[in-house]
Amino acid sequence: MAGDPDKTPVRVAVLGCGHVGTALVELLSDPARSDELAERAGLRLEVVGIAVQDRSRRRSEHPWFPAQLITDDTKGLVARDDVDLVVELIGGLSPARELVETALSAGRPVVSANKALLAAAGAELAAMAAEHGVDLLYEAAVAGAIPVIRPLRQSLAGERIVRVMGIVNGTTNFILTRMSEDGSDYGAALAEAQRLGLAERDPTADVEGHDAAAKAAILASLAFGADVRHADVSVEGITTVRASDVSFASRLGYAVKLLAVAELLDDGAEVSVRVFPAMVPTSHPLATVGGSFNAVFVEGEASGELMLYGRGAGGRPTASAVLGDVIDAARHLRSGSAAPAPDRSRPVRFRPSSAMRSAFYLSIDVADRPGVLAQVARVFGDHGVSIRSMEQMGLADEARLVFLTHEAEEGAVTATIDELQRLHVVDKVGGVLRVVPAADTAEAGD
Amino acid sequence: MAGDPDKTPVRVAVLGCGHVGTALVELLSDPARSDELAERAGLRLEVVGIAVQDRSRRRSEHPWFPAQLITDDTKGLVARDDVDLVVELIGGLSPARELVETALSAGRPVVSANKALLAAAGAELAAMAAEHGVDLLYEAAVAGAIPVIRPLRQSLAGERIVRVMGIVNGTTNFILTRMSEDGSDYGAALAEAQRLGLAERDPTADVEGHDAAAKAAILASLAFGADVRHADVSVEGITTVRASDVSFASRLGYAVKLLAVAELLDDGAEVSVRVFPAMVPTSHPLATVGGSFNAVFVEGEASGELMLYGRGAGGRPTASAVLGDVIDAARHLRSGSAAPAPDRSRPVRFRPSSAMRSAFYLSIDVADRPGVLAQVARVFGDHGVSIRSMEQMGLADEARLVFLTHEAEEGAVTATIDELQRLHVVDKVGGVLRVVPAADTAEAGD
Repeated sequence: MAGDPDKTPVRVAVLGCGHVGTALVELLSDPARSDELAERAGLRLEVVGIAVQDRSRRRSEHPWFPAQLITDDTKGLVARDDVDLVVELIGGLSPARELVETALSAGRPVVSANKALLAAAGAELAAMAAEHGVDLLYEAAVAGAIPVIRPLRQSLAGERIVRVMGIVNGTTNFILTRMSEDGSDYGAALAEAQRLGLAERDPTADVEGHDAAAKAAILASLAFGADVRHADVSVEGITTVRASDVSFASRLGYAVKLLAVAELLDDGAEVSVRVFPAMVPTSHPLATVGGSFNAVFVEGEASGELMLYGRGAGGRPTASAVLGDVIDAARHLRSGSAAPAPDRSRPVRFRPSSAMRSAFYLSIDVADRPGVLAQVARVFGDHGVSIRSMEQMGLADEARLVFLTHEAEEGAVTATIDELQRLHVVDKVGGVLRVVPAADTAEAGD
Repeated sequence: MAGDPDKTPVRVAVLGCGHVGTALVELLSDPARSDELAERAGLRLEVVGIAVQDRSRRRSEHPWFPAQLITDDTKGLVARDDVDLVVELIGGLSPARELVETALSAGRPVVSANKALLAAAGAELAAMAAEHGVDLLYEAAVAGAIPVIRPLRQSLAGERIVRVMGIVNGTTNFILTRMSEDGSDYGAALAEAQRLGLAERDPTADVEGHDAAAKAAILASLAFGADVRHADVSVEGITTVRASDVSFASRLGYAVKLLAVAELLDDGAEVSVRVFPAMVPTSHPLATVGGSFNAVFVEGEASGELMLYGRGAGGRPTASAVLGDVIDAARHLRSGSAAPAPDRSRPVRFRPSSAMRSAFYLSIDVADRPGVLAQVARVFGDHGVSIRSMEQMGLADEARLVFLTHEAEEGAVTATIDELQRLHVVDKVGGVLRVVPAADTAEAGD
């Protein structure tokens, strides 16, 4: 019965058909799954068009894959009257932004996995979705299959979240895990990641932390109800992390992880959003997140500490998150409602990284001769950075000094490093890692 | 402006004011939080009544706590015209069920943290909520602050979930963690849990696995779209687990955990829902969940493996989850919509535990004399249970034989245990633990 809303399918246009798009279309079109999917979702979903750049590429092994729906007229597909809902998997800012805007302003809900777009223009797009009373959902834009966005938007909607720490880039986590497991140096671990398809040929966006920064902006916006953009995130990558840093950290009971950290400061008046490599105590739940897995650790005033863990990338895991959003958006479309737009009204003042405080790990290559340690130590003292421990390792005619500091203002640590680099006896300041305090796993009985 | 829906508060009745209820009323009434909460939630919430059994008890330290709203007329509160939304924190089946039914049939959304009620009558209550077009939400009924229910209902709505394994009882996880950390025996660890307020004076519901079983039923219903009740769950507790079992497991690279395990079998035609103590490989994410923390590990066909971790109990963490539901329900009430009732239409056939397969750990106290091992080993062989390894530990004039089996049909293992217990040379079959295979942490590049 075509008029029965439970039988009339919600018609879905899929823009972009790489790994995620192909996996999504397969999940939606598999004849062996479709009845089960309809039962679970409470409605039928039908792919009515798939926009690609290169129509000649073969997408799927399955004979039932609806290759006849493939078009290279992306704009035309978004404008079609028989499209109820648009899934944007193109990535990047343009033409993705125009396509999403076209769909939203035509009153069509959009599901996107596009972290770059959401970190650049999330507020404008959310406002446009709200204006037209439709959904803009993007669970897959951060941490693949892991439910992160929805818990922040809904489950924790009444929570005062004070900190979010995420391992949100699988490529760098794979590299750091390899360096820790078998002592590989950074270059070898990166090459292995590239061989396995876990790193791009040009790995810059991952290893320099930019991918994680976009995700940090999205997480911070939702966690704090503020408007945080990619450009607001301060970023350090992992390219200077050395095998010896990782093994030293491990000997001290720490794992080295690239973290996206968003913090609410000064009773909510300030925020800090940053990406940096850090030493995480092995007792901390984030330390156990290995290989290309992702996890997001959330600290709320009432909820305490939560962690959401799983596969942060890959076609099928990411498509699973997109599908959850598609079902939500389709249900809302049917009931004439929409997910409330996340609040972004908190006035944002970013605390500069230099005014943050942290304990640090620093490894410094110096000439191996008397008096060097005194010179180096004096620089720390001059900047008021207090040393907790120091260890010297011999390296041919050089020595490596490894310092752990007490908590210090980061500006003072940066000034220390700058001055050290100008010292004649210092060859190089290598790995600089922040040290994350232990998680609060105290027993809280009622 | 009273007519502005953004300003008119949604009026909330709180039934039950123990630790969770008090924390919830505090979160809703704290004047320092209320503007921030209204911004984040997009609406105002107002507590208009708090039903308790004993009006004389003091609930909160805060002078602003609305003690004047406390009443012992619970039925009267639920029936009041000025109540928009009911939070049920009484627990147990009666009178909670009647109160929830009264609220739902009056068209009022209900938020509940009552695992017993939902595991006993979840299907009927969900049908009643759907009939009246209102929400029945219960994130806090399983695993406290951890977003578990919402991810299963929404994020994974399109996912074919094949297995859920949860550490969903903090009391038993605390006891097992203590036994592992300092070699305490079960009794000493239980006594410590009781001292810390983590175990009841009568710990039966926790240590015998019944609390976990109720939560397993709720998780299985949502994960598989089936109607699973508490009575359908097969249960083994932790009371027979000995310190020596825990230390032996640890030596082999396993942590002992009480697991709630729900599995989809035979391509979805059968399910198995059970609670049992198990040896979890230390490389598995669940093995790192210590103390009274909870975690739910979900395996989906497309999503791969996910884990949701956090505080599974305590007043404020649980209240945080309740508050997320209250905000969701209030938003839906305002938009005239409701969360779709979870599908429970999958025809359920429960595979009996005896027909499941698992590897096992068994520790058997025997007389220390020649020929005993041969007698014991023959019993395994007679039942077709293949032994992977055996170790003997001396204990005064007794010996303890510790066996690990290959995967075997559980009925055969049970029959083996029964026959062993009848052997003259066997004093006692102690810890019986299933052995969980390693998690799939393989790198899946695109």
